[in-house]
Amino acid sequence: MSTINRQLLLKHRPDGALVRRDDFELVRQPVGELQAGEALVRVLYISMDPTNRVWMRDIPQYMPPVAIGEVMRAGGIGRIVQSRSTLFKEGDLVHGLLGWQDYLVIRESSAANFSRLPADPGIPLPRLLGACGTSGVTAYYGLTDIAPVEAGETLVVSAAAGSVGSVAGQIGKIMGARVVGIAGGAEKCRYLTDQLGFDAAVDYKSADWKKILKNATPNGVHVNFENVGGEIMKTVLSRMVLGGRVALCGLISGYTGETKPGDDFSVIVVKRLLVRGFLVFDYKKTQQAVQALSGWMREGKLIAGETVVDGLEDAPLVLNRLFDGSHTGKLVLRVDPQP
Amino acid sequence: MSTINRQLLLKHRPDGALVRRDDFELVRQPVGELQAGEALVRVLYISMDPTNRVWMRDIPQYMPPVAIGEVMRAGGIGRIVQSRSTLFKEGDLVHGLLGWQDYLVIRESSAANFSRLPADPGIPLPRLLGACGTSGVTAYYGLTDIAPVEAGETLVVSAAAGSVGSVAGQIGKIMGARVVGIAGGAEKCRYLTDQLGFDAAVDYKSADWKKILKNATPNGVHVNFENVGGEIMKTVLSRMVLGGRVALCGLISGYTGETKPGDDFSVIVVKRLLVRGFLVFDYKKTQQAVQALSGWMREGKLIAGETVVDGLEDAPLVLNRLFDGSHTGKLVLRVDPQP
Repeated sequence: MSTINRQLLLKHRPDGALVRRDDFELVRQPVGELQAGEALVRVLYISMDPTNRVWMRDIPQYMPPVAIGEVMRAGGIGRIVQSRSTLFKEGDLVHGLLGWQDYLVIRESSAANFSRLPADPGIPLPRLLGACGTSGVTAYYGLTDIAPVEAGETLVVSAAAGSVGSVAGQIGKIMGARVVGIAGGAEKCRYLTDQLGFDAAVDYKSADWKKILKNATPNGVHVNFENVGGEIMKTVLSRMVLGGRVALCGLISGYTGETKPGDDFSVIVVKRLLVRGFLVFDYKKTQQAVQALSGWMREGKLIAGETVVDGLEDAPLVLNRLFDGSHTGKLVLRVDPQP
Repeated sequence: MSTINRQLLLKHRPDGALVRRDDFELVRQPVGELQAGEALVRVLYISMDPTNRVWMRDIPQYMPPVAIGEVMRAGGIGRIVQSRSTLFKEGDLVHGLLGWQDYLVIRESSAANFSRLPADPGIPLPRLLGACGTSGVTAYYGLTDIAPVEAGETLVVSAAAGSVGSVAGQIGKIMGARVVGIAGGAEKCRYLTDQLGFDAAVDYKSADWKKILKNATPNGVHVNFENVGGEIMKTVLSRMVLGGRVALCGLISGYTGETKPGDDFSVIVVKRLLVRGFLVFDYKKTQQAVQALSGWMREGKLIAGETVVDGLEDAPLVLNRLFDGSHTGKLVLRVDPQP
């Protein structure tokens, strides 16, 4: 009896804001025999990230777009279930670009693209994709290396209830800043102030949100951790102090190609801003960040949230939840029903 | 016999790309008697700067816009011709915001806004507004503080034949960088390569300028000294190396409100750029910069160019030359026919 691997191949590039199920082709094929030097990974959890949506588009970006007919690229955590490689042994947990599929064969030549996780990480696996993984590490470097925030300063975080934003805001609090989060809906805003300890939250869906943001930042904004772009970023930048810093992490409002960014570089000159784009993948040694994040979590200073959703075949629809704002914290797809 | 002061007052805000003579009202009024503590300045030279055009517009900017009915604000050099102040004596040369007018009364309460120049600066006065003044100092801090360029790197300067750009490119050469300038027209491009020692020049008016820029930057662009914005900036940013730096000095393509900037923050993330806006007025002690610039000039490493035009009453039309590209180097208006 051969093991069947389900794979979601990109059939055509989404032409609207939302990804449709039939933008992908679901193929099922048996997992072949391993060759010498190969290891077979069972995909357990897939990280759902805004960048996935960009990878589907044929535009200049930091990696080549996913090609038509290729398995959809995605980060995730898997377990080695069979190995003919000395680099991996059965039971090892690995992290890397596993893709929207049940199984993946790792060759030794590409082993460096996958990192091994501790056998018993002591942290729920979805959190290793979220607050103690790529999302948290992104927030960490954004506020320690790219645009460090100092005690007494005001930090504004957009998409603040999301996987990166929720950690960024809490790191801001740990550093002694006044932290204002921007999120969609009263419920998320309550989550930020009541659960995560933000000083204020602004619901960008409310009619007078710009005024609320203004009132919430009476001393202006010293650091903006930006995840959204477009009108939200523009409004935050208009509140920046002279010489303010922007950690440009993401611009999700433009990722689907539907919304107009409304970007304007002139504010960078007028306010003498330092705007720095960054990508977590540029940080090769992230142990320090993971240790700091885990430490804060143990001390109760950092609260992690994940939304775990089942079903590989629904991956395209699950991804849309990043863009309709219907989740909080890290959005993770559980591929193996019994991880 | 009383001395007559001609003043150009902003009558209404220009509504097109070009400034019209009748956007200003020319008034003539006698210079009154000086009060105790006052000094009278004869305006000699006025600096024509892109920022003047922005000051005419009622948009958010780094200083309040010029109010309707107010003398047009402009930097310049003047001479004290009468003084009842202990801070200034007859014959002193002063630099500051003198305005589009023949005479200005300085009160002691605002004396700090004006700096005294040496009695015999040893440098032609228009140059003290250009390469050895605000323009040169801007270029200096852009490439030493905001986005330092290192030997062997590639620097691209836009508006490279202009007052700031021409100095920025030459500083890049002094620092050992490969320097590529972007300018309008074959003549300006020849000036950059043949006179100023740029490694290459790209004429953005030629049909295939993007390809020429690409060929001129085979190793990508490490530092962009940006003066223009819009399509030119976008094209340069597309050539940046990962982690490249941008000194955002000006965005002249958007100053008249006619052209669409076409700004896009996403390249900042994709290329992990550091983009930093700056304003020369933030540097309070510019002696070091002026000394460096003057030194390079004496050593023949820095060539200065000025275009000096006569006629206060023509100031609005002269300013347009900054935007139609019909000048090279620093554009200076001579107000006093015998400075």
